[in-house]
Amino acid sequence: MIAEDFAKQQRSISISEFFEKNRHLLGFDNKVKALLMIIKEGVDNSLDATEEAGILPDIYVKVKELKPEVYEIIIKDNGPGVVKKQIPKIFGKLLYGSKFHKLKQSRGQQGIGISAATLYSQLTTGEPLQIVSSIGDGILHKYRIKIDVRKNEPIIMDSGSEEGIQWRGVQLKFATEGIYREGKQSIPEYIKQTAISNPHANIIFDSPKGRMEFIRVIDHLPKKPKEIQPHLKGVELGIILRMLRETKARTLSNFFTSEFTKIGRTSAKEICYRAGIEETKKPKKITDDEARKIIAVVKGVKLLKPPTDCLSPLGIDVTKEGMRKELEPEWIDSITRPPEVYRGWPFQIEVGIAYGGKIESPKVMRFANRVPLLYQAGDCAITKSVTGVEWKRYGLNGKGMPEDPVTIFVHMVSVWVPFTSESKEAIASYPIIIKEIKLALQECARKLGLYLSGKRKLEYHKQRLNTFEKYSDETANAISELTNVKKESIKSIFTELIESKRDHPKEEENGRGEAEEVGPPSVEPSSEEGESYDRAARQVTLERLLRREDRPDSNGE
Amino acid sequence: MIAEDFAKQQRSISISEFFEKNRHLLGFDNKVKALLMIIKEGVDNSLDATEEAGILPDIYVKVKELKPEVYEIIIKDNGPGVVKKQIPKIFGKLLYGSKFHKLKQSRGQQGIGISAATLYSQLTTGEPLQIVSSIGDGILHKYRIKIDVRKNEPIIMDSGSEEGIQWRGVQLKFATEGIYREGKQSIPEYIKQTAISNPHANIIFDSPKGRMEFIRVIDHLPKKPKEIQPHLKGVELGIILRMLRETKARTLSNFFTSEFTKIGRTSAKEICYRAGIEETKKPKKITDDEARKIIAVVKGVKLLKPPTDCLSPLGIDVTKEGMRKELEPEWIDSITRPPEVYRGWPFQIEVGIAYGGKIESPKVMRFANRVPLLYQAGDCAITKSVTGVEWKRYGLNGKGMPEDPVTIFVHMVSVWVPFTSESKEAIASYPIIIKEIKLALQECARKLGLYLSGKRKLEYHKQRLNTFEKYSDETANAISELTNVKKESIKSIFTELIESKRDHPKEEENGRGEAEEVGPPSVEPSSEEGESYDRAARQVTLERLLRREDRPDSNGE
Repeated sequence: MIAEDFAKQQRSISISEFFEKNRHLLGFDNKVKALLMIIKEGVDNSLDATEEAGILPDIYVKVKELKPEVYEIIIKDNGPGVVKKQIPKIFGKLLYGSKFHKLKQSRGQQGIGISAATLYSQLTTGEPLQIVSSIGDGILHKYRIKIDVRKNEPIIMDSGSEEGIQWRGVQLKFATEGIYREGKQSIPEYIKQTAISNPHANIIFDSPKGRMEFIRVIDHLPKKPKEIQPHLKGVELGIILRMLRETKARTLSNFFTSEFTKIGRTSAKEICYRAGIEETKKPKKITDDEARKIIAVVKGVKLLKPPTDCLSPLGIDVTKEGMRKELEPEWIDSITRPPEVYRGWPFQIEVGIAYGGKIESPKVMRFANRVPLLYQAGDCAITKSVTGVEWKRYGLNGKGMPEDPVTIFVHMVSVWVPFTSESKEAIASYPIIIKEIKLALQECARKLGLYLSGKRKLEYHKQRLNTFEKYSDETANAISELTNVKKESIKSIFTELIESKRDHPKEEENGRGEAEEVGPPSVEPSSEEGESYDRAARQVTLERLLRREDRPDSNGE
Repeated sequence: MIAEDFAKQQRSISISEFFEKNRHLLGFDNKVKALLMIIKEGVDNSLDATEEAGILPDIYVKVKELKPEVYEIIIKDNGPGVVKKQIPKIFGKLLYGSKFHKLKQSRGQQGIGISAATLYSQLTTGEPLQIVSSIGDGILHKYRIKIDVRKNEPIIMDSGSEEGIQWRGVQLKFATEGIYREGKQSIPEYIKQTAISNPHANIIFDSPKGRMEFIRVIDHLPKKPKEIQPHLKGVELGIILRMLRETKARTLSNFFTSEFTKIGRTSAKEICYRAGIEETKKPKKITDDEARKIIAVVKGVKLLKPPTDCLSPLGIDVTKEGMRKELEPEWIDSITRPPEVYRGWPFQIEVGIAYGGKIESPKVMRFANRVPLLYQAGDCAITKSVTGVEWKRYGLNGKGMPEDPVTIFVHMVSVWVPFTSESKEAIASYPIIIKEIKLALQECARKLGLYLSGKRKLEYHKQRLNTFEKYSDETANAISELTNVKKESIKSIFTELIESKRDHPKEEENGRGEAEEVGPPSVEPSSEEGESYDRAARQVTLERLLRREDRPDSNGE
């Protein structure tokens, strides 16, 4: 019987088997990208661990060719280290970690990345991952680990330890197939962008082509994001049913106040009352229908938005400082939006725009929880938002993407970033996320627009002055004939006037707003007093010209 | 110590938890799409099961609104059924099934889809999936199943059975949140396209807006695709190491001939010789370094390509028939490319192009293993190939996508389709896949181009004839005066000539090739003989006109 033949073949698939066959889902599509993915997973973990432990990160990355298309990769940090017992699972089991079950802003969130790197290197070279770790207790643990793909469990190839070592941190050494390339979407690009979004980190990268060094520019850690509890309005029925079963709370009212964010006694009472359930009922005794009622009535209950101390954006200054250092633009500004909520999860958008200077062509830099996103741009909410802005309104050219020399920096921070795939390369297009990014872009673009229109007016002004200068001789002649004032006197007034206008163009039209100008045009903005002084001086000159009694060499009428 | 605090939080994540939180990865991004995904998983499974069992599929689908944004979904088939013991796991455990570990062309391949549908409906309504199944032995099994998300194991809510029921198949009933909409990317569109690519299926769909019925147009099942073994050239080191450990073969040489496709005794011997390993060595004793040698030497060994009887494309006739029936175009043609190989896995591309008729605007229909792909078009190798064709060369307008009323059908069949995400909505862009699709599109477009240029020539020809007719009176007058032949005679020759040209335009310029024309322009193509006859007739007429001695009513000079 067919159904029975089928039954013989039906069995479980381990998550390692699944991702081994579908490794492109984890970003291991090709040999060039594979090297980047391994380094990205390692560095992201190091940055998360140091930040969590309150340590200013020193990170060392090395890529060395062992033979054609086979590389050794080393990632080393000064983080808190991993305790002995956890080493095999953290690096040798997919879907294992501490971040998935928390609502907390961090780079990693799935418990897949670093063991996927182990999986890929073992698949291509057969070599285990070498781990050296110490938690700073003087003992150094060494492991060589592979993954049992059929079971999704670590295999310890060998392990050992040394005592009396004064060092703390983790060092990983992979041997993997790959191809090292520089340029767009490369490891150097990833590290450069990581330095921009993590200006508190020292990063040294020894590539096959030499050393790159990024020294920290900020000497303190970013604000530590707090872990939060889920928001009742963002929770689905299936989740609340499970939470009711697993909670330690003894009453329904207590369940609400202890398991969810921003629910006090009053709100908890109101929810119970509206749902027609006793406050003191045991959570485990709540029926499916009662849970359905809770979900239904919650829509009508006023609850505070989730707290925002769970978010740690870069901030305007850090964004600008990071971009300025790397890009050396003519103009730069940055915006941080107030926090918003999607599916009950808080998030926040930051945008920076840099224009001109050493920037040669348009570019969008995408970040999520301080991690640069280099691939799948077309699929990302950030790209969709950028191409959704009417850049022409703000004085830029091009349809969709601007064509001017502009770098657009967009950063989303959240307790849970909705990525479009396990490789975490693009942000899913939730309408509220797109809306926030667009608002931030528009706000920042408006400032750029003012600057550009000011710059254009300046150009126009200069051109007018030049024209005036060109004809000043003739004009002076004509006025001299009409007024009988000596041509030389008139011309000297003209020259004075032109020079004064050239030095001090009308400032308010320059529209710099709060933005800083960091390169040419090197027109020095005059102070308010300087401006008034200047205006008065010009006034005097004009009066001298027009009032005959002032003419020094007047011949009379 | 920080590392120890971390350790307390580190734990396993079940695949159900992972996809519950990341349900957008499975295509459950929003309520509209959720309904489609559930139906798609159900129908794809039914089509796979019936095909595998050699049964012509009768599939019934129903979507019924229970209350606002909550729907009941029924999917019922006449397939082989599922044996009692397997029912809970098949429908209530992610990563479970018979297709993942096989290299065989089928719609499902991951063991995720249908249990993801259970997961989503339980998450949103708290309701279990209801399953009714019989393998045709007179016993009907009934189950209500949920998923234990923490463990990724089925929970049997209740079960029972009835005897003496003469029916065979599976019926699924979901209660889920969702929104029912018609139009682009909708359930009706999915079912319509499924009918095109599965013309051997009867599908009835009872939607909230009425019934749609698709009757089978082909009364036999598609060619049954064969399961194949992996090809040694496409296998990575990590995989071969595992295969060496798991094989039942007792010698290395036997391992090659029994575990891989297209390796005979001679090739097996050659590989062993080149790698410097004894043919008789036990596979389990092969070291990692020896396996590395095998992978290295295999590159230089000539091996036959994988067999192609593992592929079952629609074929030219079925593609055309399906498209013609649904689209009623003016012109249609189809191409099936020879099989090719990516990463050691055989695949094959089919393309159909339909033009004009009832087609109003350009459209691309994407299929993988007979399943229509409705979402993530931008990310798909098919879209990239379509926009990579220079359509202008073939007489169409538009940059990237053609702007003409044309429907482009692209179908990839493979033993393993490389999807860009678990939701199986787009094909990953392997260069060889893009190349094959483009070649097929170009070949088919060339035919369309010939047809269109013929059509344009025909238009031009008609216009010229009309102009000639318009001036025939005047011309006849002038010739009559010059030649002294009666105007009426000349005019009658003209009329005869025009009529003959109008009926039989030069056929070779029409360029229909093998394509069939299924609508207007309703110009009957003349046979070769007809054409020659016609040419001769015209010749005679012209001679009559030019040779004076033939003039019947000549008045002499």
